[in-house]
Amino acid sequence: MSDTFQLQRLEELVRETIPLATAMDVRVLASDEDGLRLGAPLAANANLHGTIFGGSAAALTILAGWSLVRLRLIALALDPTLVIQRTSLDFLAPAEGDLVARAHPPDDDAWERFLRTYHRHGRARLAVQVTLWADGAQVARSTGWYVALEQDEAA
Amino acid sequence: MSDTFQLQRLEELVRETIPLATAMDVRVLASDEDGLRLGAPLAANANLHGTIFGGSAAALTILAGWSLVRLRLIALALDPTLVIQRTSLDFLAPAEGDLVARAHPPDDDAWERFLRTYHRHGRARLAVQVTLWADGAQVARSTGWYVALEQDEAA
Repeated sequence: MSDTFQLQRLEELVRETIPLATAMDVRVLASDEDGLRLGAPLAANANLHGTIFGGSAAALTILAGWSLVRLRLIALALDPTLVIQRTSLDFLAPAEGDLVARAHPPDDDAWERFLRTYHRHGRARLAVQVTLWADGAQVARSTGWYVALEQDEAA
Repeated sequence: MSDTFQLQRLEELVRETIPLATAMDVRVLASDEDGLRLGAPLAANANLHGTIFGGSAAALTILAGWSLVRLRLIALALDPTLVIQRTSLDFLAPAEGDLVARAHPPDDDAWERFLRTYHRHGRARLAVQVTLWADGAQVARSTGWYVALEQDEAA
Protein backbone atom coordinates (compact mmCIF):
# COMPACT_ATOMS: atom_id res chain seq x y z
CA MET A 1 0.00 0.00 0.00
CA SER A 2 2.78 2.42 0.90
CA ASP A 3 6.23 2.66 -0.56
CA THR A 4 9.47 2.62 1.39
CA PHE A 5 9.89 6.37 1.03
CA GLN A 6 6.54 7.01 2.72
CA LEU A 7 7.35 4.64 5.58
CA GLN A 8 10.71 6.31 6.11
CA ARG A 9 9.05 9.74 6.18
CA LEU A 10 6.52 8.48 8.71
CA GLU A 11 9.31 7.11 10.91
CA GLU A 12 11.14 10.43 10.73
CA LEU A 13 7.96 12.38 11.54
CA VAL A 14 7.19 10.20 14.55
CA ARG A 15 10.72 10.20 15.94
CA GLU A 16 11.33 13.90 15.36
CA THR A 17 8.10 15.10 16.94
CA ILE A 18 7.60 12.53 19.73
CA PRO A 19 10.72 12.23 21.93
CA LEU A 20 9.31 9.09 23.54
CA ALA A 21 9.21 7.34 20.14
CA THR A 22 12.96 7.88 19.85
CA ALA A 23 13.50 6.69 23.44
CA MET A 24 11.48 3.57 22.57
CA ASP A 25 13.52 3.18 19.34
CA VAL A 26 10.31 2.81 17.33
CA ARG A 27 10.68 1.55 13.74
CA VAL A 28 8.11 1.61 10.97
CA LEU A 29 8.44 -1.94 9.64
CA ALA A 30 5.83 -2.32 6.93
CA SER A 31 2.50 -1.21 5.56
CA ASP A 32 0.58 -3.53 3.28
CA GLU A 33 -2.79 -5.26 2.92
CA ASP A 34 -2.25 -6.89 6.35
CA GLY A 35 -1.99 -3.49 8.02
CA LEU A 36 0.78 -1.35 9.43
CA ARG A 37 3.54 -2.77 11.61
CA LEU A 38 5.73 -0.89 14.08
CA GLY A 39 8.62 -2.42 16.01
CA ALA A 40 10.24 -1.60 19.36
CA PRO A 41 13.21 -3.54 20.77
CA LEU A 42 13.08 -5.17 24.21
CA ALA A 43 16.18 -3.42 25.57
CA ALA A 44 14.75 0.11 25.40
CA ASN A 45 11.31 -1.05 26.53
CA ALA A 46 11.98 -3.51 29.36
CA ASN A 47 10.39 -3.60 32.82
CA LEU A 48 11.84 -4.94 36.05
CA HIS A 49 11.04 -8.53 34.98
CA GLY A 50 13.10 -8.16 31.78
CA THR A 51 9.93 -8.37 29.66
CA ILE A 52 8.22 -5.53 27.76
CA PHE A 53 6.94 -2.72 30.03
CA GLY A 54 3.14 -2.46 29.76
CA GLY A 55 3.47 1.28 29.21
CA SER A 56 5.70 0.71 26.16
CA ALA A 57 3.17 -1.78 24.80
CA ALA A 58 0.36 0.76 25.27
CA ALA A 59 2.38 3.55 23.65
CA LEU A 60 3.38 1.41 20.62
CA THR A 61 -0.24 0.32 20.22
CA ILE A 62 -1.52 3.91 20.19
CA LEU A 63 1.19 4.92 17.73
CA ALA A 64 0.49 1.97 15.40
CA GLY A 65 -3.21 2.78 15.11
CA TRP A 66 -2.45 6.46 14.63
CA SER A 67 0.14 5.69 11.93
CA LEU A 68 -2.23 3.45 9.99
CA VAL A 69 -4.93 6.13 9.86
CA ARG A 70 -2.41 8.89 9.15
CA LEU A 71 -0.89 7.02 6.15
CA ARG A 72 -4.34 6.38 4.70
CA LEU A 73 -5.24 10.06 5.07
CA ILE A 74 -1.95 11.14 3.45
CA ALA A 75 -2.75 8.88 0.50
CA LEU A 76 -5.99 10.88 0.06
CA ALA A 77 -4.16 14.22 0.45
CA LEU A 78 -6.07 14.86 3.70
CA ASP A 79 -4.29 16.48 6.61
CA PRO A 80 -6.61 16.65 9.65
CA THR A 81 -5.47 16.79 13.24
CA LEU A 82 -5.64 13.15 14.35
CA VAL A 83 -5.82 12.25 18.02
CA ILE A 84 -6.51 9.20 20.16
CA GLN A 85 -9.80 9.46 22.06
CA ARG A 86 -10.05 6.08 23.77
CA THR A 87 -8.01 2.91 24.03
CA SER A 88 -8.46 -0.46 25.67
CA LEU A 89 -5.68 -3.00 25.91
CA ASP A 90 -5.69 -6.64 27.06
CA PHE A 91 -2.41 -8.27 27.95
CA LEU A 92 -2.43 -11.97 27.09
CA ALA A 93 1.13 -13.03 27.98
CA PRO A 94 4.46 -11.45 28.97
CA ALA A 95 6.39 -10.20 25.92
CA GLU A 96 9.84 -11.71 26.23
CA GLY A 97 11.37 -10.34 23.04
CA ASP A 98 11.26 -7.35 20.70
CA LEU A 99 7.75 -6.03 20.29
CA VAL A 100 5.80 -5.71 17.03
CA ALA A 101 2.48 -3.85 16.93
CA ARG A 102 0.22 -4.57 13.97
CA ALA A 103 -2.62 -2.15 13.27
CA HIS A 104 -5.27 -3.99 11.28
CA PRO A 105 -6.95 -2.24 8.34
CA PRO A 106 -10.52 -1.20 9.13
CA ASP A 107 -13.13 -2.87 6.94
CA ASP A 108 -14.18 -0.93 3.85
CA ASP A 109 -17.58 0.07 5.22
CA ALA A 110 -16.13 1.55 8.41
CA TRP A 111 -13.46 3.43 6.48
CA GLU A 112 -15.98 4.87 3.99
CA ARG A 113 -18.30 5.93 6.82
CA PHE A 114 -15.36 7.61 8.56
CA LEU A 115 -14.42 9.56 5.41
CA ARG A 116 -18.02 10.51 4.64
CA THR A 117 -18.57 11.82 8.17
CA TYR A 118 -15.27 13.70 8.10
CA HIS A 119 -16.09 15.40 4.79
CA ARG A 120 -19.59 16.29 5.97
CA HIS A 121 -18.89 17.44 9.54
CA GLY A 122 -15.14 18.14 9.68
CA ARG A 123 -14.90 15.55 12.42
CA ALA A 124 -15.08 11.75 12.45
CA ARG A 125 -14.13 8.78 14.61
CA LEU A 126 -12.66 5.44 13.62
CA ALA A 127 -11.95 2.28 15.65
CA VAL A 128 -8.67 0.49 14.89
CA GLN A 129 -7.76 -3.00 16.12
CA VAL A 130 -4.11 -3.51 17.05
CA THR A 131 -2.45 -6.79 17.98
CA LEU A 132 0.95 -7.03 19.68
CA TRP A 133 3.47 -9.77 19.02
CA ALA A 134 6.79 -10.91 20.48
CA ASP A 135 8.84 -13.92 19.37
CA GLY A 136 6.06 -14.85 16.94
CA ALA A 137 3.39 -15.10 19.68
CA GLN A 138 0.48 -12.73 20.25
CA VAL A 139 0.96 -11.00 23.60
CA ALA A 140 -1.80 -8.35 23.64
CA ARG A 141 -4.78 -7.01 21.72
CA SER A 142 -6.27 -3.57 21.68
CA THR A 143 -8.94 -1.33 20.24
CA GLY A 144 -8.20 2.35 19.80
CA TRP A 145 -10.65 5.08 18.78
CA TYR A 146 -9.13 7.91 16.77
CA VAL A 147 -10.73 11.26 15.97
CA ALA A 148 -9.87 13.26 12.86
CA LEU A 149 -10.56 17.00 13.11
CA GLU A 150 -10.26 19.55 10.33
CA GLN A 151 -7.32 21.80 11.17
CA ASP A 152 -9.59 24.86 11.59
CA GLU A 153 -11.87 22.87 13.91
CA ALA A 154 -8.94 21.76 16.04
CA ALA A 155 -7.40 25.22 16.36
CA MET B 1 0.60 6.75 54.13
CA SER B 2 4.19 6.44 52.84
CA ASP B 3 7.21 8.38 53.96
CA THR B 4 9.59 10.28 51.72
CA PHE B 5 12.20 7.52 51.92
CA GLN B 6 9.74 4.96 50.53
CA LEU B 7 8.71 7.26 47.69
CA GLN B 8 12.33 7.91 46.81
CA ARG B 9 13.04 4.16 46.76
CA LEU B 10 10.04 3.59 44.54
CA GLU B 11 11.24 6.29 42.12
CA GLU B 12 14.70 4.72 42.03
CA LEU B 13 13.25 1.23 41.47
CA VAL B 14 11.04 2.42 38.62
CA ARG B 15 13.71 4.50 36.90
CA GLU B 16 16.49 1.93 37.28
CA THR B 17 14.47 -1.03 35.99
CA ILE B 18 12.29 0.65 33.35
CA PRO B 19 14.38 2.68 30.85
CA LEU B 20 11.23 4.31 29.50
CA ALA B 21 10.41 5.76 32.94
CA THR B 22 13.75 7.57 32.85
CA ALA B 23 13.13 8.73 29.28
CA MET B 24 9.73 10.06 30.44
CA ASP B 25 11.44 11.70 33.45
CA VAL B 26 8.86 10.13 35.79
CA ARG B 27 8.74 11.49 39.35
CA VAL B 28 6.99 9.99 42.35
CA LEU B 29 5.26 13.07 43.76
CA ALA B 30 3.22 11.92 46.73
CA SER B 31 1.36 9.07 48.36
CA ASP B 32 -1.34 9.86 50.90
CA GLU B 33 -5.04 9.23 51.64
CA ASP B 34 -5.90 10.75 48.22
CA GLY B 35 -3.82 8.14 46.42
CA LEU B 36 -0.48 8.03 44.68
CA ARG B 37 0.67 10.74 42.28
CA LEU B 38 3.31 10.46 39.56
CA GLY B 39 4.52 13.36 37.42
CA ALA B 40 5.97 13.55 33.91
CA PRO B 41 7.03 16.84 32.26
CA LEU B 42 5.62 17.95 28.91
CA ALA B 43 9.02 18.38 27.22
CA ALA B 44 10.00 14.69 27.41
CA ASN B 45 6.47 13.54 26.65
CA ALA B 46 5.25 15.80 23.85
CA ASN B 47 3.61 14.83 20.57
CA LEU B 48 3.65 16.65 17.25
CA HIS B 49 0.98 19.08 18.51
CA GLY B 50 3.14 20.12 21.49
CA THR B 51 0.69 18.46 23.90
CA ILE B 52 1.21 15.24 25.88
CA PHE B 53 1.67 12.15 23.65
CA GLY B 54 -1.18 9.67 24.28
CA GLY B 55 1.37 6.90 24.68
CA SER B 56 3.09 8.78 27.50
CA ALA B 57 -0.28 9.30 29.18
CA ALA B 58 -1.05 5.58 28.91
CA ALA B 59 2.39 4.60 30.23
CA LEU B 60 2.19 7.00 33.21
CA THR B 61 -1.31 5.72 33.99
CA ILE B 62 -0.18 2.09 34.02
CA LEU B 63 2.82 2.99 36.18
CA ALA B 64 0.71 5.00 38.66
CA GLY B 65 -1.72 2.15 39.30
CA TRP B 66 1.14 -0.32 39.58
CA SER B 67 2.99 1.93 42.05
CA LEU B 68 -0.06 2.37 44.28
CA VAL B 69 -0.59 -1.38 44.57
CA ARG B 70 3.13 -2.05 44.96
CA LEU B 71 3.51 0.44 47.85
CA ARG B 72 0.51 -1.07 49.65
CA LEU B 73 1.95 -4.57 49.25
CA ILE B 74 5.38 -3.43 50.50
CA ALA B 75 3.66 -1.99 53.60
CA LEU B 76 2.33 -5.52 54.28
CA ALA B 77 5.74 -7.12 53.61
CA LEU B 78 4.28 -8.87 50.55
CA ASP B 79 6.40 -9.20 47.43
CA PRO B 80 4.39 -10.81 44.62
CA THR B 81 5.01 -10.36 40.94
CA LEU B 82 2.62 -7.58 39.96
CA VAL B 83 1.58 -7.10 36.34
CA ILE B 84 -0.98 -5.14 34.37
CA GLN B 85 -3.64 -7.37 32.78
CA ARG B 86 -6.03 -4.87 31.21
CA THR B 87 -6.31 -1.13 30.85
CA SER B 88 -8.84 1.25 29.37
CA LEU B 89 -8.17 4.94 28.97
CA ASP B 90 -10.46 7.81 27.93
CA PHE B 91 -8.91 11.07 26.78
CA LEU B 92 -11.06 14.05 27.74
CA ALA B 93 -8.93 16.99 26.56
CA PRO B 94 -5.42 17.68 25.21
CA ALA B 95 -2.86 17.94 28.02
CA GLU B 96 -1.05 21.20 27.42
CA GLY B 97 1.28 21.11 30.43
CA ASP B 98 3.22 18.75 32.66
CA LEU B 99 1.26 15.59 33.36
CA VAL B 100 0.20 14.26 36.78
CA ALA B 101 -1.33 10.81 37.15
CA ARG B 102 -3.27 10.12 40.32
CA ALA B 103 -4.02 6.50 41.22
CA HIS B 104 -7.05 6.46 43.50
CA PRO B 105 -7.06 4.15 46.53
CA PRO B 106 -9.37 1.16 46.06
CA ASP B 107 -12.24 1.00 48.54
CA ASP B 108 -11.61 -1.08 51.65
CA ASP B 109 -13.87 -3.97 50.57
CA ALA B 110 -12.12 -4.38 47.23
CA TRP B 111 -8.69 -4.24 48.85
CA GLU B 112 -9.60 -6.82 51.50
CA ARG B 113 -11.07 -9.14 48.88
CA PHE B 114 -7.90 -8.77 46.80
CA LEU B 115 -5.68 -9.67 49.80
CA ARG B 116 -7.91 -12.56 50.87
CA THR B 117 -7.90 -14.05 47.38
CA TYR B 118 -4.15 -13.58 47.08
CA HIS B 119 -3.46 -15.35 50.41
CA ARG B 120 -5.84 -18.20 49.52
CA HIS B 121 -4.94 -18.80 45.87
CA GLY B 122 -1.54 -17.11 45.39
CA ARG B 123 -3.15 -14.98 42.68
CA ALA B 124 -5.58 -12.06 42.78
CA ARG B 125 -6.77 -9.17 40.64
CA LEU B 126 -7.51 -5.57 41.58
CA ALA B 127 -9.03 -2.70 39.60
CA VAL B 128 -7.42 0.71 40.09
CA GLN B 129 -8.88 4.01 38.89
CA VAL B 130 -6.38 6.58 37.63
CA THR B 131 -7.10 10.18 36.64
CA LEU B 132 -4.71 12.35 34.63
CA TRP B 133 -4.27 16.07 35.15
CA ALA B 134 -2.45 18.92 33.41
CA ASP B 135 -2.50 22.59 34.41
CA GLY B 136 -5.07 21.77 37.08
CA ALA B 137 -7.59 20.28 34.65
CA GLN B 138 -8.52 16.62 34.29
CA VAL B 139 -7.43 15.40 30.86
CA ALA B 140 -8.06 11.64 31.02
CA ARG B 141 -9.44 8.84 33.15
CA SER B 142 -8.56 5.18 33.23
CA THR B 143 -9.22 1.85 34.85
CA GLY B 144 -6.39 -0.67 35.12
CA TRP B 145 -6.62 -4.27 36.28
CA TYR B 146 -3.52 -5.55 38.03
CA VAL B 147 -2.72 -9.17 38.88
CA ALA B 148 -0.55 -10.17 41.85
CA LEU B 149 1.10 -13.58 41.54
CA GLU B 150 3.11 -15.37 44.19
CA GLN B 151 6.71 -15.43 43.00
CA ASP B 152 6.70 -19.26 42.72
CA GLU B 153 3.46 -19.11 40.71
CA ALA B 154 4.95 -16.54 38.36
CA ALA B 155 8.21 -18.42 37.73
